[in-house]
Amino acid sequence: MRSESKIIHRIWTKLRPTGQTPDWLRLGIGDDAAVLRTQYPSHSDRGTTELVLSCDAFLEKIHFRVDTVPSGAIGYKALARATSDLAAMGATPRFFMLSLALPGELSGKWLDSMLTGMSQAAREFGMVLIGGDTSQNANVVMNLTVGGEVAVGHALTRADARPGDGIYVSGTLGAAQLGLELMLRGLSRNRQWKKLLEPHLQPKIQLDLGRWLAEGKKSCAIASSAIDTSDGLSSDLAHICEASGVKARVFASQIPQVQIPASLRKHEFDPLQLALHGGEDYQLLFTAPQEHRIPPSFKGTLITKIGEIVRGGTTRGRHLIELVDPSGRKSQLAIEGWDSFRGK
Amino acid sequence: MRSESKIIHRIWTKLRPTGQTPDWLRLGIGDDAAVLRTQYPSHSDRGTTELVLSCDAFLEKIHFRVDTVPSGAIGYKALARATSDLAAMGATPRFFMLSLALPGELSGKWLDSMLTGMSQAAREFGMVLIGGDTSQNANVVMNLTVGGEVAVGHALTRADARPGDGIYVSGTLGAAQLGLELMLRGLSRNRQWKKLLEPHLQPKIQLDLGRWLAEGKKSCAIASSAIDTSDGLSSDLAHICEASGVKARVFASQIPQVQIPASLRKHEFDPLQLALHGGEDYQLLFTAPQEHRIPPSFKGTLITKIGEIVRGGTTRGRHLIELVDPSGRKSQLAIEGWDSFRGK
Repeated sequence: MRSESKIIHRIWTKLRPTGQTPDWLRLGIGDDAAVLRTQYPSHSDRGTTELVLSCDAFLEKIHFRVDTVPSGAIGYKALARATSDLAAMGATPRFFMLSLALPGELSGKWLDSMLTGMSQAAREFGMVLIGGDTSQNANVVMNLTVGGEVAVGHALTRADARPGDGIYVSGTLGAAQLGLELMLRGLSRNRQWKKLLEPHLQPKIQLDLGRWLAEGKKSCAIASSAIDTSDGLSSDLAHICEASGVKARVFASQIPQVQIPASLRKHEFDPLQLALHGGEDYQLLFTAPQEHRIPPSFKGTLITKIGEIVRGGTTRGRHLIELVDPSGRKSQLAIEGWDSFRGK
Repeated sequence: MRSESKIIHRIWTKLRPTGQTPDWLRLGIGDDAAVLRTQYPSHSDRGTTELVLSCDAFLEKIHFRVDTVPSGAIGYKALARATSDLAAMGATPRFFMLSLALPGELSGKWLDSMLTGMSQAAREFGMVLIGGDTSQNANVVMNLTVGGEVAVGHALTRADARPGDGIYVSGTLGAAQLGLELMLRGLSRNRQWKKLLEPHLQPKIQLDLGRWLAEGKKSCAIASSAIDTSDGLSSDLAHICEASGVKARVFASQIPQVQIPASLRKHEFDPLQLALHGGEDYQLLFTAPQEHRIPPSFKGTLITKIGEIVRGGTTRGRHLIELVDPSGRKSQLAIEGWDSFRGK
């Protein structure tokens, strides 16, 4: 069985166009979203913009369960996780298409409530439904195609991190994984822990921060690279390192780890492991040159410097991230975030 | 259980934006594809164009089987059926995104061969892969997002058929359904019928015809409305009637029905029923004012006039199509094309 990155490589190898890249395509496969040099008739004061497109599958039994997750949360999250890819590019979301397959018995109340959640997300993000597809299927299958706009040439990619850049992350890491673990261990019905489920059920995505990182205050990008933490810090930082041809040094003590309440102590959750490898936080992980002053928070969202980019070869996947523990001891961080084909 | 059209209506009701339609959106949900007033930097001599977007799910056990259909044909058809929606808008395809979920055991040879078929389709249609998503899943789940361009204001919709317009269809109807029936009845291994499977396995889509219908010879649209025959003539013509607020009169003797070989006579296929209700031919069904001379063929593809648009109310789904049999007797045509939620 191939790993997810090998499958993506295979798809790209087989479907790569034989001729040269069309000049309307600024950025194709391999980043959070594609960027087209299509002039978007924006009415913002930011002048001409480019089109940013992404798609994201959300599958029952792989990404969610219909028996334990409220349908409204499923609808909200389906659109949020797809739109987080636009945040990672620094784009302003505008529209989406919903491809939906579901069993006939879920086509009544369940569908209505799922759509209510999705509608809430669409309103929050400022997006309009422009099309879609429906089908009957034994399991719920969703695919969200999302589109937005970004100032010409300003889309944030994974490929421009440079040695010396600082590495930053928004919010706290591991919170969504903790929520998922509580559900998987059957602890989610306990009222005192209900609040802990929210990051998993209804993740907040970082659209304002993404826009600011891409366009800055004076139309000068703040970040040199960015990605959203969908697979987990270790995997997502590795994606930046691979795309940029660099390595990373991360300080364990600086990572903004999820707080584990004392009442959960006996369940032995390890906050550092959750923060390093837990998926679906949908925070922004980005790099910025040292001369750019990054504030400790942006519009109420914490921003933490967790390390720095260092020189490195193009070693695929291995030895890309050096983890420095509180005593100063260094080790190579294993890439253990979410890989659908590896199971974890 | 709701029908497919009721589910689409439900989705639209719940996700309809509360404010006014954004002015960058020329055509939203409810047609073969959406049209955005996004300026596409085309290098054709046709001047400025608009962006056309559509998405299409292609699901194992619903739309295809992996044990009987060659994987190359699955890859080809996945992209062809999605791109047929661009043909129905009169657009020139440019790019696609592939969202793919599959079992680990299909991630080797099966995947490679599926991608070879998809790559062939991409080359034929002139499309570039710009992004996607992969995941592991118990069944193969594909979603294709396709994009193209059309001259400003020239996209063909379902909504502009007018009383007096002629109704035309390309190619022959029922051929794909015949191929599917041969496979379902276990007759597909017989070599003499192999050729009959092709319309089901590897449908030809009508991109050149669509472009001509939208843009004509002198930048004047030929067709007043168009749709691709994905659900079947009865369902697809009903879609045009509903969207345009008209009715249709169709002459049974004029429908270009699939030819049933004499060797299949004992299996009692009814070519008229196949042509009226069989899905997935991906031909173009269109209307045109009587003053537009429609040739009997276009670049080798047969074009047949099968009826005319007549005045009518907005009766949803029922009594929209009058079928005239060879003796001149009239009857109401039941809408019995493909509805995923009805099962046929």
